[in-house]
Amino acid sequence: MTTDPVLDHIDADLPNAIARLQDLLRIRSISTDPEFADECQRAAEWLVEDLQSIGIDATVRPTPGHPMVVGHMDGPVEAPHILFYGHYDVQPVDPVELWDSDPFDPAVVDGPHGQTIRARGSSDDKGQLMTFVEACRAWKAVHGSLPCRLTILFEGEEESSSPSLVPFLTENADELRADLALICDTGLFQSQTPAIMTMLRGLVAEEVTIHGPARDLHSGMYGGVAMNPIRVLTRVLGGLHDDQGRVTIPGFYDGVPDLDAELAAQWDALGFDHKRFLGDVGLGIPAGEQDRTPLEMIWSRPTAEINGIWGGYTGAGFKTVLPAQAHAKISFRLVGDQDPVAIRAAFRDWITAQLPADCRAEFKLSGGAGGSRMATDHPLFEQTRAALTEEWGDEAAYVGCGGSIPIAGHFKTILCMDALLTGFARDDDNIHSPNEKYDVACFHKGIRSWARMLGKLA
Amino acid sequence: MTTDPVLDHIDADLPNAIARLQDLLRIRSISTDPEFADECQRAAEWLVEDLQSIGIDATVRPTPGHPMVVGHMDGPVEAPHILFYGHYDVQPVDPVELWDSDPFDPAVVDGPHGQTIRARGSSDDKGQLMTFVEACRAWKAVHGSLPCRLTILFEGEEESSSPSLVPFLTENADELRADLALICDTGLFQSQTPAIMTMLRGLVAEEVTIHGPARDLHSGMYGGVAMNPIRVLTRVLGGLHDDQGRVTIPGFYDGVPDLDAELAAQWDALGFDHKRFLGDVGLGIPAGEQDRTPLEMIWSRPTAEINGIWGGYTGAGFKTVLPAQAHAKISFRLVGDQDPVAIRAAFRDWITAQLPADCRAEFKLSGGAGGSRMATDHPLFEQTRAALTEEWGDEAAYVGCGGSIPIAGHFKTILCMDALLTGFARDDDNIHSPNEKYDVACFHKGIRSWARMLGKLA
Repeated sequence: MTTDPVLDHIDADLPNAIARLQDLLRIRSISTDPEFADECQRAAEWLVEDLQSIGIDATVRPTPGHPMVVGHMDGPVEAPHILFYGHYDVQPVDPVELWDSDPFDPAVVDGPHGQTIRARGSSDDKGQLMTFVEACRAWKAVHGSLPCRLTILFEGEEESSSPSLVPFLTENADELRADLALICDTGLFQSQTPAIMTMLRGLVAEEVTIHGPARDLHSGMYGGVAMNPIRVLTRVLGGLHDDQGRVTIPGFYDGVPDLDAELAAQWDALGFDHKRFLGDVGLGIPAGEQDRTPLEMIWSRPTAEINGIWGGYTGAGFKTVLPAQAHAKISFRLVGDQDPVAIRAAFRDWITAQLPADCRAEFKLSGGAGGSRMATDHPLFEQTRAALTEEWGDEAAYVGCGGSIPIAGHFKTILCMDALLTGFARDDDNIHSPNEKYDVACFHKGIRSWARMLGKLA
Repeated sequence: MTTDPVLDHIDADLPNAIARLQDLLRIRSISTDPEFADECQRAAEWLVEDLQSIGIDATVRPTPGHPMVVGHMDGPVEAPHILFYGHYDVQPVDPVELWDSDPFDPAVVDGPHGQTIRARGSSDDKGQLMTFVEACRAWKAVHGSLPCRLTILFEGEEESSSPSLVPFLTENADELRADLALICDTGLFQSQTPAIMTMLRGLVAEEVTIHGPARDLHSGMYGGVAMNPIRVLTRVLGGLHDDQGRVTIPGFYDGVPDLDAELAAQWDALGFDHKRFLGDVGLGIPAGEQDRTPLEMIWSRPTAEINGIWGGYTGAGFKTVLPAQAHAKISFRLVGDQDPVAIRAAFRDWITAQLPADCRAEFKLSGGAGGSRMATDHPLFEQTRAALTEEWGDEAAYVGCGGSIPIAGHFKTILCMDALLTGFARDDDNIHSPNEKYDVACFHKGIRSWARMLGKLA
């Protein structure tokens, strides 16, 4: 079973592959907002039908939240057994007025790197998961079978902290366990070099509400004498970082390893252009710990970010109110052996210790997972690296990743299985932002990359 | 012309007066939200019709914003000429889910001090302005005329910084000028003692937007290296007050007078119970400058308050975003000779000086006025004080007021006219909050107070 005819088939079938992806992108599967639950269900059903059309035995698997999609396909007994993971849910689209077209009406438009598909989820992660599905479709069309045993797992809650994932993996461990997991939810390095992620940051997310007066107050009658919870919230969160960009929560850096010399040298060799990276988004000054390189700030250092803040009057005009509450959503990216449970506890203690005696804080948990490092000595890592290098020309790099893909850790701890993370997103794909896009070239070469990788297993 | 039969008439007509007020309260005249512009117009028309029914020559007077209501009534030539001011616009009603009934379906219910009228605007300021209208109606019904010359001015933009007020006063100065202005938009002292405000705080309001990255970013890809504007905003605003509760903006206290000994002694004699005042709203610790009394914090000291803050993702669930912008609405209560223009400039400089070089701040002005002191040596002050004392039993107090009623300053500077501020609101009226109410006893005794005051002019 050779790869070349599969690649030819992929090239010829590209318009149909784009049309299939557009169908999937039309489904508004925003997982974090309960209003879109039916759309998540519909996305899962669409995927099952598509997988079945390739001959994969796929089903919608209910969970207490949005459903999983699980599929199986047999292959040669001696061939490796691979689990492929992606997620069909997407981020909210607000602020929707900043989109140049309807986020759920996928348009193929001219982009900075040629033709691109603009829609919410095009890059994160519907476009990416379809690269693998299309590679399988082409192998099946050309050779009638795959050169490996395959299990598919598509999740519908990745953008909303994956509440159903751990129970589902635990309950279905025997069915899902494979030799290696392939996770396609990451990007190229600097938009041109294929990359395999060997280091992932974890994530702890917390919502905090500061309660002050029992009701909203008029700032004329109470201003000056009554404590304003927005004042408390800004004072506390304003001290989250020191002048050197370090997070000030006591114990926050417990378990954070220093970068080993070999990896530091590899990363230096990548020639990361932080001025361009930041300049592309209108910034210029690395905001993290001032004694670290910009690449360390993203890949190997923990962070604390305020992802949302609100309180008082935020509408048109002015309202001179002292609100009863003020709120913030804060997330921490974790690395090394930082313990998500300890970080959450330290954050809560740190907030609580700073409150005036007549205010109180209320916390709402929103999931958490530690950072992880991949098993780069697994033979499939080098095979995949070779396939990527052949397809893209540039040598594929082993890199870190600032994002949190807790699934890799769960595969390790629950299924005792290593994971390989690669993907074809570009830095300017605007994931989680208005005008998300996935370049047609990335989609096309992504499909071809997986086809080559499957060819290595033949 | 004696007052007693007027008071009897007021007592007998109270149910009708309440019904008239309820009619006015049903009109959703929220001035800050353009969606309710028609309702503001409707409130003005309702008032004109009601004033005309008493024989006051009233008209709706258009402005670039919401209209004014102006009315005139002749009286004895030798009698004083009085201008009565109130405002028919109201605050927004959010969070509407915290109301026990529809804010615009006025209900007479049992309250903490007997029967009360629950509706947005019942206390601030529709109920208050109707106390004077009802007193005039009763004088007219009993005696056929008023014992003074009267001009009425009702504004529809008091809750949205009064953009049309100064031009309107300037253009119509000759028509509006009188011997003294009566302003009914304040409250009783500690909910039982009638009070005349002799000191008012001014107000400067500013909206600030911190611009960071050119678009919303994913905190996995950019977190740690890209500056988050919420981090900038919380750090800057978190330093707005020092540990002693003082505002830290350079020059902020320029022009703030110390309290003179006589007034300090008067205020001490009032026996202000700050523990109860704060305890009533679930607080306990005076939040202002720690070397000042709680009454000074409210009446004679300037403040800086964050009235609203927002940025990033604030919906259900979590979104690990670094937003492009973060926003806050900040207001300053001013006293003495603090210059609103200088305060605004100092605030803007203070923010700008603290920004990282790759962030910028944008400011939106929202009106401003300095603090003011009343001409307590005007003979009508002592006459009004006597009328209030007769009606309420407790001696009427000369007090300060934490709120900002810039109209008093405008009357002085534009119309060269002093103003007397009194009113019958209670501390627990929930003005600007859910479940605003105006006690029937306050409405009733308020009408009787004005009737007695008119009697002093006869």
